[in-house]
Amino acid sequence: MSAEVVPLPRKEPSLAPILSLTATAMNAVNTVILDRMQSEIPLIPALAGHLISGGGKRMRPMLTLAGADLVGYQGTRHHKLAAAVEFIHTATLLHDDVVDGSETRRGKEAANLVFGNPATVLVGDFLFSRAFELMVEDGSLKVLKILAGASSIIAQGEVDQLVSQRVIETSEDRYLHIIGAKTAVLFAAASRIAAVVAERDEAEERALDDYGRNLGIAFQLVDDAIDYDSDAAEMGKDRGDDFREGKMTLPVILAYARGNDEERRFWQEAIAGFRNEDEDLAHAIELIRKHDSVNATRERARHFAERAVDALSIFPDGKARAAMTEAARFAVSRGY
Amino acid sequence: MSAEVVPLPRKEPSLAPILSLTATAMNAVNTVILDRMQSEIPLIPALAGHLISGGGKRMRPMLTLAGADLVGYQGTRHHKLAAAVEFIHTATLLHDDVVDGSETRRGKEAANLVFGNPATVLVGDFLFSRAFELMVEDGSLKVLKILAGASSIIAQGEVDQLVSQRVIETSEDRYLHIIGAKTAVLFAAASRIAAVVAERDEAEERALDDYGRNLGIAFQLVDDAIDYDSDAAEMGKDRGDDFREGKMTLPVILAYARGNDEERRFWQEAIAGFRNEDEDLAHAIELIRKHDSVNATRERARHFAERAVDALSIFPDGKARAAMTEAARFAVSRGY
Repeated sequence: MSAEVVPLPRKEPSLAPILSLTATAMNAVNTVILDRMQSEIPLIPALAGHLISGGGKRMRPMLTLAGADLVGYQGTRHHKLAAAVEFIHTATLLHDDVVDGSETRRGKEAANLVFGNPATVLVGDFLFSRAFELMVEDGSLKVLKILAGASSIIAQGEVDQLVSQRVIETSEDRYLHIIGAKTAVLFAAASRIAAVVAERDEAEERALDDYGRNLGIAFQLVDDAIDYDSDAAEMGKDRGDDFREGKMTLPVILAYARGNDEERRFWQEAIAGFRNEDEDLAHAIELIRKHDSVNATRERARHFAERAVDALSIFPDGKARAAMTEAARFAVSRGY
Repeated sequence: MSAEVVPLPRKEPSLAPILSLTATAMNAVNTVILDRMQSEIPLIPALAGHLISGGGKRMRPMLTLAGADLVGYQGTRHHKLAAAVEFIHTATLLHDDVVDGSETRRGKEAANLVFGNPATVLVGDFLFSRAFELMVEDGSLKVLKILAGASSIIAQGEVDQLVSQRVIETSEDRYLHIIGAKTAVLFAAASRIAAVVAERDEAEERALDDYGRNLGIAFQLVDDAIDYDSDAAEMGKDRGDDFREGKMTLPVILAYARGNDEERRFWQEAIAGFRNEDEDLAHAIELIRKHDSVNATRERARHFAERAVDALSIFPDGKARAAMTEAARFAVSRGY
């Protein structure tokens, strides 16, 4: 027998543990989703289903389910509420696609292209209303308050992003403020309501909220990094969309901040909408690589993911906490 | 002294009594509206204010206020809730204008033209969320249920209307079903919640709901009549919009049903979108006049307005009931 120690191969973080933790409950959530997107108007489930069955990761409802497991919740109220969270998210995606004139979503033709902007706006409204109907059925004013407040902040974040589009002066702090509103607030709310239905104390609510918020920021940072990362997997997102739409995301903000005068002139023209060719995108990616902006963005994401992980420290060790910890680290590593 | 009796001139129904009944409370509602449409993102109050200060009639919140007076409610909870109702209505108007590509609204350039579709969609979402925040602050799950349910039915009614656009086979019953959802449900909910905050019994809730629903149908019928009534006042609506958009409203449904083969061919082509000239609209108005479809539509409206009036019969006589009665009759007479 050899005394040699064979080191375990370094394991890449994976979503597998959180998927397995929440699999049974997610089936129940999916049943609610499919049931409650129905309507006597056939166009509604057709359009909603185009997106909902389009292979979304169900990240946000998964946070509600994992959080419920983490705090030892035994009931089933969180199924409806997790479905409500997914409906709010789906409504914002539908409206986003109209706002951005998206061509693809989750690797498929976007709903606005298949069904037109008018129906897409209205079905978004329907899903949003349905989310509130589900919450009302659950009957917790506290949950309603959390998710109504989150919805209002999301809408403000979306407007804020719209206003900062094509504005080269957008700072990193302002960008973080925007993604904190448009993305992280729903992650935070989805996590927090798990503690609410389980009637845990304020400290546990806040810990789950902090977990979700930081994870959401990490998640969005990596999404925005991937859009400029030519080596990354496709993720169902049109590469270079952000560039062509003149969105000020962190990879651009950092490349601009770190760039010389000539590079800054390029970014000014590009973000203003005068550099729309494939070669312009190629040059943008080159500048971003030169200044290591994708990696820097991922490093920022890692910071928030670790804050998410540490927010869970008030909870006992166990399967749920381990799965949620790994999910946060996966959020940073995906697309590598 | 003469024995001759001078008959009083027949008085046209007017909104004056309900405006006077609700004037003080409406000031409070307007304060809530102005206060709660604020945001740290200046574009939001700018865009919302463009529509909200654009001279809307505040019909729906007025129903909440008048209903509260009718049932003798003494508190102030209905101020926030009436503002929530107006926010839901404003959100649907903003989204409608995007859906229809409207050019004017309330006699002004429509928000979508001034601020663009993206911002208009998102500010609609914001106001919708704000409505739910106001309801959550009030804290009545019953009110939340009524208005969440109403919102979901409105969205379905809007989709239903979209689906029936340019479909000549739309029947009167189907049309009534659509306006029952897209318009009347919010009138019904706005009225009903007055009884809910006053903690009146189910019969009074239902009576106010019936009043609002029938009034809402009458209101929409007359709106749709005015769009083809060349003698009517402008009402801030672009004359002939419904015609150019191929909307199947009752004046068209009746003219088509009552028309001969040649006329039907005209309507088929027009609703399908192949008759967009001013002379086509003139011909449409001529056919509608020939078949008395505007008057027939107004007669249908009168039927629903009288149902609204009779729904109030369980309430004692008094200023509020008289004002609400006259408001229902005004809804039919306006635009003459």
